[in-house]
Amino acid sequence: MALINENYLKLPGSYLFSEIARRVEAYKTANPEANIIRLGIGDVTKPLPEAVIKSLHNAVDEMADEKTFKGYGPEQGYDFLLKKIIEFDFNPRGVELAIDEIFVSDGSKSDTANFQEIFGLNNKIAITDPVYPVYVDSNVMAGRSGTLGADGKWTDMVYIPCTAENGFVPQIPTEKVDLIYLCFPNNPTGTTISKTELKKWVDYAKVNQAIILYDAAYEAYIQEDDVPHSIYEIAGAKEVAIEFRSFSKNAGFTGTRCSYVVVPKEVMGYTESGEPIEINKLWNRRHCTKFNGVPYIIQKGAEAVYTTAGQQQIKALVEYYMANAKMIREGVASKGIEVFGGINAPYIWLKTPTGMDSWTFFDKLLTEVNIVGTPGVGFGPNGEGYFRLTAFGSKENTEEAIRRFTTEFKI
Amino acid sequence: MALINENYLKLPGSYLFSEIARRVEAYKTANPEANIIRLGIGDVTKPLPEAVIKSLHNAVDEMADEKTFKGYGPEQGYDFLLKKIIEFDFNPRGVELAIDEIFVSDGSKSDTANFQEIFGLNNKIAITDPVYPVYVDSNVMAGRSGTLGADGKWTDMVYIPCTAENGFVPQIPTEKVDLIYLCFPNNPTGTTISKTELKKWVDYAKVNQAIILYDAAYEAYIQEDDVPHSIYEIAGAKEVAIEFRSFSKNAGFTGTRCSYVVVPKEVMGYTESGEPIEINKLWNRRHCTKFNGVPYIIQKGAEAVYTTAGQQQIKALVEYYMANAKMIREGVASKGIEVFGGINAPYIWLKTPTGMDSWTFFDKLLTEVNIVGTPGVGFGPNGEGYFRLTAFGSKENTEEAIRRFTTEFKI
Repeated sequence: MALINENYLKLPGSYLFSEIARRVEAYKTANPEANIIRLGIGDVTKPLPEAVIKSLHNAVDEMADEKTFKGYGPEQGYDFLLKKIIEFDFNPRGVELAIDEIFVSDGSKSDTANFQEIFGLNNKIAITDPVYPVYVDSNVMAGRSGTLGADGKWTDMVYIPCTAENGFVPQIPTEKVDLIYLCFPNNPTGTTISKTELKKWVDYAKVNQAIILYDAAYEAYIQEDDVPHSIYEIAGAKEVAIEFRSFSKNAGFTGTRCSYVVVPKEVMGYTESGEPIEINKLWNRRHCTKFNGVPYIIQKGAEAVYTTAGQQQIKALVEYYMANAKMIREGVASKGIEVFGGINAPYIWLKTPTGMDSWTFFDKLLTEVNIVGTPGVGFGPNGEGYFRLTAFGSKENTEEAIRRFTTEFKI
Repeated sequence: MALINENYLKLPGSYLFSEIARRVEAYKTANPEANIIRLGIGDVTKPLPEAVIKSLHNAVDEMADEKTFKGYGPEQGYDFLLKKIIEFDFNPRGVELAIDEIFVSDGSKSDTANFQEIFGLNNKIAITDPVYPVYVDSNVMAGRSGTLGADGKWTDMVYIPCTAENGFVPQIPTEKVDLIYLCFPNNPTGTTISKTELKKWVDYAKVNQAIILYDAAYEAYIQEDDVPHSIYEIAGAKEVAIEFRSFSKNAGFTGTRCSYVVVPKEVMGYTESGEPIEINKLWNRRHCTKFNGVPYIIQKGAEAVYTTAGQQQIKALVEYYMANAKMIREGVASKGIEVFGGINAPYIWLKTPTGMDSWTFFDKLLTEVNIVGTPGVGFGPNGEGYFRLTAFGSKENTEEAIRRFTTEFKI
């Protein structure tokens, strides 16, 4: 009898986005004339940069010619891309990496979901709360979660609150943890972490032989100095941290799919008997056995991000979205609502006014001014009473949404 | 302390292809003038079909324009591709499928490696021997293998010999099994299964509530009538079988990456308490949590395979490689060597002459006539004494290899 992985049965439905869709649909049916503006989903809307388009076309032509056709490539990615990643994303920040410490992949969702596979089941997982749900769900599926309590927390996971009360700075938990998911600039709160605070986590990991899984998918949105772009800017991090990067948000690759993981050779995991094992070797084995590389065409597209033109074009993309972020941030604040994020990230996290819960605010925003956002509670129990807006819409839609919000929305 | 998944330590190194590379390198160093022809790896060499190239270019242009730009798509694949898959690959064979029974993915390697995740650890796994190593390794990593014996077999897995002695027809094992990996046309043996024999497995799975994981990546190479292209041609298979398909070998997508999995809603797995659970729902959850869809551009390329021009062009590609297969098959047979496969598959599986072991034959072929193939023992204990040649080289190289083999190779 084929037995299923019963951990899957513990997962509640993908409640958040399906519930949003259901409520929006119901509203549209009742109000077919409504002009709904979506500031909810973290998807980009601007086309791929010209440099990327040109490189994609060239790569397609290479695939048409027997002399330049590419079949299976190295699972870890082509050297031409690996070299550029190190040269542009790390060397300028004083971080040296070897080419076999980078693994090109098809997205940070896949990477952050898959990485836990190389770890044992009896690790204590720490997540910030609110959090990107994939870190949690992938560990539930693997069997590291325990059961879901009435408080919305999994009994075997350690939740690290990041709220207005603690300035969204994750504090070292009293309980000992082994694998720590951190994401900065943060999804969903849009907040960042200082080097001083991040160093506390690196030091904790070193002392406790823990590993930090650092999601830096929104790194390109950092505007302020002294905010770390990579965890490897922190001394000692190369011994304890894995970093996830993506082309989704800097270069608009959400539908084009390319990302990478940095796995320094110094990072060690341990056997039950305490023997250190290189995480790089384990991940390499996983990556080569369960994945077969990113399309050559797509890797050539990603390479173009690192040309002079490509760098200018992704800078312009980020500036475009960050102008939206500023507009949203200032518009929301002008109503006397507490607002966070939106300075070094495309996400604006607002505290719902008058103690309203996240879903009540969602309904009010939808019905009064036809704006769709994301209820904070969908990202974890400590997201209750918060709400996420994103800067990935068009300038025109964002302007109109903020006009409605500031002039028509009643709080 | 971050504990590793110790199952990974059980895996021997990726011995096969690295050992091949090592021996070829050593030979080249000693014989720098040698003109080595590789008939070893299952990678294609002809460029992508024109129809695919055209569609890829069009899709790249769409990504350059805000009006047609695509961000996140449905994780399961776009409807335009799902519909074509059903219409072209299944309906003509009398197989009806719903659109949400197909999951577009980035390769059959990923799919066949990942699919086991939705099953419990205490399933008995059956594999044919020899076998595509990914089925085995992914189950070892997950913890279903037991230990590796001196006979080259994992203690908890059930090996189903497919050798010349039984005509490469897998026989139902005496021990009860729960998950059964079958691959036809077979990699590495190039042999097929008749509908009558495949029905025995479907019937077994139905009676025993087992599930068949059917890898049909080489389906396009079937030339003979009455060889099943899909397991769903067998009555009842939709209740017990998952099918894996790929664009790698029919359309040359090994470096372009697109595949799909068929998961009929009738297929059930079971909880320990015997409750049936839809495998389709579990896989959908896994797919959406740990994967974010195939690039839009690539899906548009795959769609073009189903145009009139695309269908003609992939037929021509298959004919090209199958002409090589015929040449290899006849050339090998002309030396009095027993040869299998190569009729409905791009793989030729030969019995090494005079009881030579696989690696001895490898060395002899490399040093005497500078041809690289793959030792059969690399695919499992029952591959010992066999050797794989592939038809994916160029016509010219294959001709030259066979010329050398027939006129210069001494047996």
